[in-house]
Amino acid sequence: SLLPPRCSWNKLSGLHQVARYSCCKGVVCFGCHIPFLLCDTDGINLYYWSLFDGHAGSGAAVVASKLLQHHILDRTLTRAASLRGGVGAPGSPSTPPTRFFTEKKIPHECLIIGAIESAFKEMDLQIERERTVYNISGGCTALVVVYLLGKLYVANAGDSRAIIIRNGEVIPMSSEFTPETERQRLQYLAYMQPHLLGNEFTHLEFPRRVQRKEVGKRMLYRDFNMTGWAYKTIEEDDLKFPLIYGEGKKARVMATIGVTRGLGDHDLKVHDSNIYIKPFLSSSPEVRVYDLLQYEHGPDDVLILATDGLWDVLLNEEVAEAVTNFLPNCDPDDPHRFVLFRDISSFSMEVRVFL
Amino acid sequence: SLLPPRCSWNKLSGLHQVARYSCCKGVVCFGCHIPFLLCDTDGINLYYWSLFDGHAGSGAAVVASKLLQHHILDRTLTRAASLRGGVGAPGSPSTPPTRFFTEKKIPHECLIIGAIESAFKEMDLQIERERTVYNISGGCTALVVVYLLGKLYVANAGDSRAIIIRNGEVIPMSSEFTPETERQRLQYLAYMQPHLLGNEFTHLEFPRRVQRKEVGKRMLYRDFNMTGWAYKTIEEDDLKFPLIYGEGKKARVMATIGVTRGLGDHDLKVHDSNIYIKPFLSSSPEVRVYDLLQYEHGPDDVLILATDGLWDVLLNEEVAEAVTNFLPNCDPDDPHRFVLFRDISSFSMEVRVFL
Repeated sequence: SLLPPRCSWNKLSGLHQVARYSCCKGVVCFGCHIPFLLCDTDGINLYYWSLFDGHAGSGAAVVASKLLQHHILDRTLTRAASLRGGVGAPGSPSTPPTRFFTEKKIPHECLIIGAIESAFKEMDLQIERERTVYNISGGCTALVVVYLLGKLYVANAGDSRAIIIRNGEVIPMSSEFTPETERQRLQYLAYMQPHLLGNEFTHLEFPRRVQRKEVGKRMLYRDFNMTGWAYKTIEEDDLKFPLIYGEGKKARVMATIGVTRGLGDHDLKVHDSNIYIKPFLSSSPEVRVYDLLQYEHGPDDVLILATDGLWDVLLNEEVAEAVTNFLPNCDPDDPHRFVLFRDISSFSMEVRVFL
Repeated sequence: SLLPPRCSWNKLSGLHQVARYSCCKGVVCFGCHIPFLLCDTDGINLYYWSLFDGHAGSGAAVVASKLLQHHILDRTLTRAASLRGGVGAPGSPSTPPTRFFTEKKIPHECLIIGAIESAFKEMDLQIERERTVYNISGGCTALVVVYLLGKLYVANAGDSRAIIIRNGEVIPMSSEFTPETERQRLQYLAYMQPHLLGNEFTHLEFPRRVQRKEVGKRMLYRDFNMTGWAYKTIEEDDLKFPLIYGEGKKARVMATIGVTRGLGDHDLKVHDSNIYIKPFLSSSPEVRVYDLLQYEHGPDDVLILATDGLWDVLLNEEVAEAVTNFLPNCDPDDPHRFVLFRDISSFSMEVRVFL
């Protein structure tokens, strides 16, 4: 059921609007511009927003936009009951006393984080299982927000971004996963499982493509365990195409994909080869927690979810300024005040902010 | 040659004192309490401080304290010349023009970071090669500071810590590498190369030891790609001893070692087994850069290097307070003002601050 305007969400906190924007080809965002009230069992409300950016077909994005919330709900419902002190909750009276071994104390919010992480993994496995039967094409990034018991859980797998604007100030709620930001993870995997490179790629990074005439000479390189650059003597193997190549928006894993986390992509291969990309992609989101009760929020404070289509052309601060300048000019009771259209260079930017 | 008091270091910046402290058994710190002037070729001064905390024998710590600076000097000298615009420097007139391929622009300080990273790796390889001939026992953490061309490079492999105190404010210059902070790296390695666990350990983490009667029941767990906790059904394999077990100072890798980066330890095995620990240990330091020219420094600003012996009993702020309260009471020209003795509970704490 969709959350009606002026619901209990509103009463919990002033931070109740979500701005979203998508301009990229392949962005799928069904029914997610308004938060879902996924569950109100036992007086526990769970709200859900999501943003999926598809590539190489819309199938994975469509499926994820319809099903990911069910995986999340399945897992968070029991945890939510636990957090209220249900049977089996850590520290609840019914938890059997620990004997012989010390038991790690697990903060309650770690159960919700783990539930969301598991849901992403299960969603990805479901796409893998059902992709042939239901013809689920391509892959997608996933940016998901769950509200539960006074906290926002922002889970990001991909290069979308979430920010909170509180009193005009930007609070980043995610970081982007790209070939450049995940270089060391990708190189480490390739170093440990070199067969994944199909004898076509090298896990080492060089400042540019190595030429045959440079074999035996010294060149700068970076391995998985380095953040700086050092010199090595070029060998025959270094002539292979680099696992990660290109800079900024042009950076690619095995010359194929520019985003390193998300759902789907199980059939994605390096062009004209039998080398699969999927082992290098991760469905694990990074989950950040924002405690709504810890801060005072004004009526113009917002949470913004957007794909790289927005963040490639506007800085966090520019988005914050646009929202902060627009909202105070609207009647606070106008339910349409969160819809504005702006034309930024060649992009038609649509920022919708919902109650 | 040792750096004489009132040297050019002093003229470069007010931040010229180093406090050091060691109380742990096995800490080796030969000649490193006074910075080495390693090199003054072509008017380029390179200063060096280091702190090694040994375990399971002092051999590795002694060798590293005598030789690591040579590995660092070998590699940074050529880079330092490059930074001044020597032949082969990135962007220097003698660098051949790039054709056909785009070339990544590498910031100069990344060459120094890479040089230090390589030096740690080579030092570790040298200990491995020579440990039998020279009877080099045990392993050690390594915390090293290099001053070059206006910048401090703080390289840390282990659980020592460096902080800068600037105008009474603490600036952390390192982070600690322990089984808990490196859980995901260690679990990922074990997940990908399970033979390293010798059929005795599980890479999964549980809140406590799993008991046989719990097979088939559900329990919380964490895998390498999770920061939260989720539920799984306990299997036979989960009864194995966890790769990482214990909390805080008691956390151990394979029930053996409580620090996950450093030098040496090539012969370290799990007690009464043939399982080597070394594959899980990394000799890669994390290198942080501090630009001395970017800030104003007063005469009481200090850089403090200390092992866990200090940080286990005092917070950064407490150390900062002790130093900040003591120094202004001394004659600024007294070369001994940086030597003070304090008694903190049962520890005999020695903070020496050198020019």
